[in-house]
Amino acid sequence: MHIADFCIFMVKLWEKGYSLDKSVEDFTVGEDYKIDVNLINADVLGSIAHAKMLTKIGILNSSELSGIKKVLAEIYNNPDFKISKEDEDVHTAIENYLVSKLGVSGKKIHTARSRNDQILTDLRIYTKENFLMLFEEVLELVETLHAFAKKNEFIPMPGYTHTRKAMPSSIGLWAGAFLESLIDDIKLLKTAYSLNNQCPLGSAAGYGVSLNIDREMTSELLGFESLQNNTLYVQNSRGKIESIVIFSLFQIIMDIGKISNDLIYFSAEEFGFFALPEKVCTGSSIMPQKKNPDALELIRGYVSVIEVNLIEVIGISKNLFSGYNRDLQLTKEPLIKTIGLSHSIINIISLIFKELEVDKEKCISACTRDIYATDSALRLVNTGMPFREAYKEISKNLDKIKADNPVENIKSKKHHGATGNLGMEKVKKHLESVKIWLAEESNKYKTKRKLLLK
Amino acid sequence: MHIADFCIFMVKLWEKGYSLDKSVEDFTVGEDYKIDVNLINADVLGSIAHAKMLTKIGILNSSELSGIKKVLAEIYNNPDFKISKEDEDVHTAIENYLVSKLGVSGKKIHTARSRNDQILTDLRIYTKENFLMLFEEVLELVETLHAFAKKNEFIPMPGYTHTRKAMPSSIGLWAGAFLESLIDDIKLLKTAYSLNNQCPLGSAAGYGVSLNIDREMTSELLGFESLQNNTLYVQNSRGKIESIVIFSLFQIIMDIGKISNDLIYFSAEEFGFFALPEKVCTGSSIMPQKKNPDALELIRGYVSVIEVNLIEVIGISKNLFSGYNRDLQLTKEPLIKTIGLSHSIINIISLIFKELEVDKEKCISACTRDIYATDSALRLVNTGMPFREAYKEISKNLDKIKADNPVENIKSKKHHGATGNLGMEKVKKHLESVKIWLAEESNKYKTKRKLLLK
Amino acid sequence: MHIADFCIFMVKLWEKGYSLDKSVEDFTVGEDYKIDVNLINADVLGSIAHAKMLTKIGILNSSELSGIKKVLAEIYNNPDFKISKEDEDVHTAIENYLVSKLGVSGKKIHTARSRNDQILTDLRIYTKENFLMLFEEVLELVETLHAFAKKNEFIPMPGYTHTRKAMPSSIGLWAGAFLESLIDDIKLLKTAYSLNNQCPLGSAAGYGVSLNIDREMTSELLGFESLQNNTLYVQNSRGKIESIVIFSLFQIIMDIGKISNDLIYFSAEEFGFFALPEKVCTGSSIMPQKKNPDALELIRGYVSVIEVNLIEVIGISKNLFSGYNRDLQLTKEPLIKTIGLSHSIINIISLIFKELEVDKEKCISACTRDIYATDSALRLVNTGMPFREAYKEISKNLDKIKADNPVENIKSKKHHGATGNLGMEKVKKHLESVKIWLAEESNKYKTKRKLLLK
Amino acid sequence: MHIADFCIFMVKLWEKGYSLDKSVEDFTVGEDYKIDVNLINADVLGSIAHAKMLTKIGILNSSELSGIKKVLAEIYNNPDFKISKEDEDVHTAIENYLVSKLGVSGKKIHTARSRNDQILTDLRIYTKENFLMLFEEVLELVETLHAFAKKNEFIPMPGYTHTRKAMPSSIGLWAGAFLESLIDDIKLLKTAYSLNNQCPLGSAAGYGVSLNIDREMTSELLGFESLQNNTLYVQNSRGKIESIVIFSLFQIIMDIGKISNDLIYFSAEEFGFFALPEKVCTGSSIMPQKKNPDALELIRGYVSVIEVNLIEVIGISKNLFSGYNRDLQLTKEPLIKTIGLSHSIINIISLIFKELEVDKEKCISACTRDIYATDSALRLVNTGMPFREAYKEISKNLDKIKADNPVENIKSKKHHGATGNLGMEKVKKHLESVKIWLAEESNKYKTKRKLLLK
Repeated sequence: MHIADFCIFMVKLWEKGYSLDKSVEDFTVGEDYKIDVNLINADVLGSIAHAKMLTKIGILNSSELSGIKKVLAEIYNNPDFKISKEDEDVHTAIENYLVSKLGVSGKKIHTARSRNDQILTDLRIYTKENFLMLFEEVLELVETLHAFAKKNEFIPMPGYTHTRKAMPSSIGLWAGAFLESLIDDIKLLKTAYSLNNQCPLGSAAGYGVSLNIDREMTSELLGFESLQNNTLYVQNSRGKIESIVIFSLFQIIMDIGKISNDLIYFSAEEFGFFALPEKVCTGSSIMPQKKNPDALELIRGYVSVIEVNLIEVIGISKNLFSGYNRDLQLTKEPLIKTIGLSHSIINIISLIFKELEVDKEKCISACTRDIYATDSALRLVNTGMPFREAYKEISKNLDKIKADNPVENIKSKKHHGATGNLGMEKVKKHLESVKIWLAEESNKYKTKRKLLLK
Repeated sequence: MHIADFCIFMVKLWEKGYSLDKSVEDFTVGEDYKIDVNLINADVLGSIAHAKMLTKIGILNSSELSGIKKVLAEIYNNPDFKISKEDEDVHTAIENYLVSKLGVSGKKIHTARSRNDQILTDLRIYTKENFLMLFEEVLELVETLHAFAKKNEFIPMPGYTHTRKAMPSSIGLWAGAFLESLIDDIKLLKTAYSLNNQCPLGSAAGYGVSLNIDREMTSELLGFESLQNNTLYVQNSRGKIESIVIFSLFQIIMDIGKISNDLIYFSAEEFGFFALPEKVCTGSSIMPQKKNPDALELIRGYVSVIEVNLIEVIGISKNLFSGYNRDLQLTKEPLIKTIGLSHSIINIISLIFKELEVDKEKCISACTRDIYATDSALRLVNTGMPFREAYKEISKNLDKIKADNPVENIKSKKHHGATGNLGMEKVKKHLESVKIWLAEESNKYKTKRKLLLK
Repeated sequence: MHIADFCIFMVKLWEKGYSLDKSVEDFTVGEDYKIDVNLINADVLGSIAHAKMLTKIGILNSSELSGIKKVLAEIYNNPDFKISKEDEDVHTAIENYLVSKLGVSGKKIHTARSRNDQILTDLRIYTKENFLMLFEEVLELVETLHAFAKKNEFIPMPGYTHTRKAMPSSIGLWAGAFLESLIDDIKLLKTAYSLNNQCPLGSAAGYGVSLNIDREMTSELLGFESLQNNTLYVQNSRGKIESIVIFSLFQIIMDIGKISNDLIYFSAEEFGFFALPEKVCTGSSIMPQKKNPDALELIRGYVSVIEVNLIEVIGISKNLFSGYNRDLQLTKEPLIKTIGLSHSIINIISLIFKELEVDKEKCISACTRDIYATDSALRLVNTGMPFREAYKEISKNLDKIKADNPVENIKSKKHHGATGNLGMEKVKKHLESVKIWLAEESNKYKTKRKLLLK
Repeated sequence: MHIADFCIFMVKLWEKGYSLDKSVEDFTVGEDYKIDVNLINADVLGSIAHAKMLTKIGILNSSELSGIKKVLAEIYNNPDFKISKEDEDVHTAIENYLVSKLGVSGKKIHTARSRNDQILTDLRIYTKENFLMLFEEVLELVETLHAFAKKNEFIPMPGYTHTRKAMPSSIGLWAGAFLESLIDDIKLLKTAYSLNNQCPLGSAAGYGVSLNIDREMTSELLGFESLQNNTLYVQNSRGKIESIVIFSLFQIIMDIGKISNDLIYFSAEEFGFFALPEKVCTGSSIMPQKKNPDALELIRGYVSVIEVNLIEVIGISKNLFSGYNRDLQLTKEPLIKTIGLSHSIINIISLIFKELEVDKEKCISACTRDIYATDSALRLVNTGMPFREAYKEISKNLDKIKADNPVENIKSKKHHGATGNLGMEKVKKHLESVKIWLAEESNKYKTKRKLLLK
């Protein structure tokens, strides 16, 4: 029998002899049966761990367990496993499938857990696995940016304030700024990763169960860092942890949005500092000459999309009566959507930086005389004139400002974080330590997962 | 040849001899090719009108026109017409299809228009058609609520302030409150409908064209109320009109959200005023006794979803450089999603009110003595005591407040808008006038559409 | 006795013999006593109308009425009238003042109304008065923009899409785009104005009163367009009407934000199309050469501030239990803040447009050859070549595009809304009709107000 | 001379011989001169550290330094020091004051720094000092909640899902849920604290200076954990760090909002589980009997206020051109407002929990038979029946469910996080470790501050 053919067995887990109005059913299921495809693997892992624990406490025997494990393992990574609308969600689809394959033992799997319990577990696992990939991608972006900054370290360009030329800057300083911003983001990401890394399983409907379940065992088996203890807190944290996860990713996306907006202007003819790789530009259906920075514009737009994913989760969960409420179902989509978009956006911007070209000549020629005004005032300070007077002196004689050699100018600024002293080795070093942490974390998790599935 | 088999002809409208990076292509197309399925019919209508106009100004001859009309009419309402990812969007899919079927004349259809022009036209048509349906649905809801309020007009219940019993109220007053709120919403909806009812076609890329196109003709043919004149304003209004449309629907949804939240509590055992129809309640996978108000909870959650659709459109379009920017592509999804959700939510709440039952006894028994405190103070006022002193008098003697007969109490309050004088005939009258307007509006539009398609 | 010296009489209207924790009192009063200064005049007007009605139904006698009117008239426009923190709000301050001055008759004024009733009335009056001023200011801006567009109608500039030069445009088209956008906004503003123009007075705590009050009389006296009927709807509309008012103003502000962002870039050296008047630019504390477009940047930032005022009102009021809840107190500040900022922003941008200079030479020299690509393709279309082929032909020969005379080019585009046919007379005509409406509306209201105060 | 009398010297730091339009000046200064009062002390500390560094690198001599230190120390904690509107901001007010007192050496203080540099430094110091207080307050709340949970650990109450009674729960479980949520929040707070704890000083206008300033020295002197390196990143992080700080506080506020909403319902007559202390309840101006939970309702409303403070900062800073832009000035208010509100809200809720009373009888009597359905099904499981069948069995016989003794029931659930095993000692232990960390952190900082001021 084909794996998707079991739908004749399909029943709701809460079947009670009356039927739901069809339009109400459609409305309550919504897109869940589609979204939950993302969670099949996580649900399988959670179910195996749960079954092992049920065996330990005597609800299942070892042959029931091995039957359950076998059937669940068939579903893992199996593209043929489908969730139908009538299934409502991944949990029902899998339980129904177990029952259709195994009969009685399938009917035992839901002992001492609820779907609210499961969805929390699934989302934590899903988020964790994606976090591990996202860390990789962010590190790749950091390395790409680092190489870009290094390569163009001493190409001068005007620094802007108020969208007006201000002082001499450099491509290195510009790229380095985002580098350090991403490093800060990683700190926040790690906190979000850690808060997500708590095992919710065993909260049941939020009030525990009257069986003597072993919650530490399932947490251990699934490779969580710790057990999320209070069963009501587990349910109340639905939406909360999601908001923290989305917010941490949003910081990355905000950085990339700022980069994108800068690139859109800096690569426009009017500025001309960068040439975008042709393969990221699209054209117009009516204007033959156009090469448009669509990918960058979309990234800029997606900043607002991910922002509202955050607001959506907050809006749904704030001030909500304690315990599970169905409203919370709607927090799944913004979480999964944010994670998906984050992958794409991080990868696209890495790809762009790998081929982004700097127009050195335009950068230099944009370094007009006026941007040396502050340097000129500070030269007067060096002769002993108080700064406020030096400022006024230069103000009155803007036409007499002497243009510096821009390359020498940016190299000569040597204090911490200035154009002549970007301190990128520290970034590199920090990067290496994150890599080591990530490799360990990833390994630990993969080992646990392998054990569950074998 | 099957209508979807023409993909070998698929080319981008802006093809220029280099190819887009595959991941960039995927990223920029995004979900557009799926979302645009909603816009096929509108794009067909817009294209027919455009072709007629091109014929009038001599770009197409009448046999080219009739060929184009025939092929386009095949696509209208044709579920087999597909948009592939490589097509990028509905406009390209249709143009490619025309070229594949007609050759040269297909290559002429894009004269004097751009895709940005088309998408605006498509969205206005799509929104207008949906508005006409939504008005129907809202009117149906208003009638249902009206009947419900009428039926339960004199069932007393406590009125609440601060989630605390305050004064005698009635089911009629409660339901009537939402009735009048919806009537106000309809005024806003009509303004949004009218602002959307402007023809953008002919703006081209936002700067017009050097051909002498007849924009009033296309506007006329498509049944728009007026022509949106300034070509740059047309493009700048992308996102703007969407925000107004979403906001107007959001007012309806906010009302329904408030109703839903009230119903969740009022139908809980602790209040007990209402009994929800069983067919809108679902159960729990772990707790056998549960009947949960899922549909109402989801509506409450969707209030936040539609709220963020609004914020998304605003976030993407605010402070954006004049003229089209690709960021704006992302405003399509929140608009279409809001419209889709609005249909469902309005229909579900109508369905619930058709079967909602009032527990008269519980309503009456909840009318405890304390809610008559203000009435008691006002009785003292009638004896000549200043209100502030009457208030203090009652405050000091709360235990002596006499309980009224609640039904008589609510009937006796006769000023405008009080429980004994709900004024629902006025609502009914207003309703009738909206119905007449809607029938006319609908007719006018359908006549135009029929003319285009024949 | 000085008008502010009556604080010894200060008592809470709900005094009941226990005292509120001091920090709780501070917390619940919040900034209300400061914000409410904006509402003193409106509260006076509402109270006079209420007193007149109470006289009609026999609660006050005519000498009590004239005493109350006299004292209230003293407070109107009196800068010495203060609201202390202990007063909690404007309503208490005024009632306490009446009692301190008049004794018994002051204690009668609160008969048949609640503070929730009053604050709604105050806000509607306050909003209406401000709307009447804001309409004036918007009309002034429209006229200024109209004059600016007319004066620079045929100065060419590149039109942009994707922040890239696209096709020939003009200063006239650019300014005209905002002109028409503001005209659309005015339609929305009028709807918001009308929804706000409903009299809430007489809802009491949301459930009416047992006295036979005459709500139509107070509505009439206060110059409202209609009576907001259902007493619960009155209370439920708190936050709702505010959200509509803010949203309508937000559309104006979004337009001005877009103008401001355009001006920031177009006046930067890299574009150079505009010269900002010196008197709207500020400098830097460290860089002697800077002239920064601070006012425009702040406007751009305020777009987000007013956006969150909207979200704040929505966030507080959505899904709230029916009837008044104290949360709603917090909707006052975002409403009043939005109205205040709107005045400033509209006036500042008018002022800028009165002195904004166009650098015609830079505009013309920015019209480089490539922007004529589409015109070139359409010339081929005029020779009979299908557009899609003409497009490809030009694509392959971008270097052969001939530059047009930009002034002639923009003048030659004559279809509706194109650079050569902006249709600004229609705008002017529409403007005149709005002016007439506004004058009438304003007169009607001022007449009512005068009657109340005399 | 009185400290505020120096206004005759008031000049703008960027004075250049033309004057700003008065309304533009008012608009650009906005509320800054009021808001900045919060930053006077921080600006003094930053200026002393900067002056010490300038002395080290030879810009000031030691007598100039001691003059500057003396004058600055006069301003610290001095309520008489005022910032006038003409001053624009705290930085100008202080520099002008130094010049008025010291002449030449005052004119040297601004060497190698900009106001954008200073405001960043001020905000970091201000935020850090407040964080240290907020940690104290949160810990106090955690302890209060801990005591409350402990005291009422075994009082049973129904646990809810979907706002419907679900399973037996307890006051201990309910309170403990928030306890653990706050513990998680503290982790996020610490990350935000650490990201804020980076010294921005020395970035100048974002592009460093040509003097050899010692940024590590100022960072050290001010007690920062580390130096924020890249000068452009410093400026780009304006808004970013603020958003992280606000978000971390928002998590606390969301928890308290949820508590407040629960308390509003649970203390309503219909539930009756809690009795609110009278001193946190206010009354109605019209209804003599009312005692309203205003403080809790306001907290619930403030959740949305702080949420929009977050959205405001994000909305202003996202996708903004690199380098300082004046829009960013507007991020000051939401940060300072959030911090102020957080203090109040945390303290109010602590106060409430100190006096909150539990109505044990009502809690117990609410534990109706139906909430034992799941326990009953699990009893059947213990006899060997598969759970899914046990579920159906109970479903069909809901009327036969036996009511448990609720106290014994909740005590009997012994797995981790269940009602009989709340694990509050772990929370206590964690709490102690945070206290130790906080004491150290606080001490370190206060020592540095003392050194600067002496």
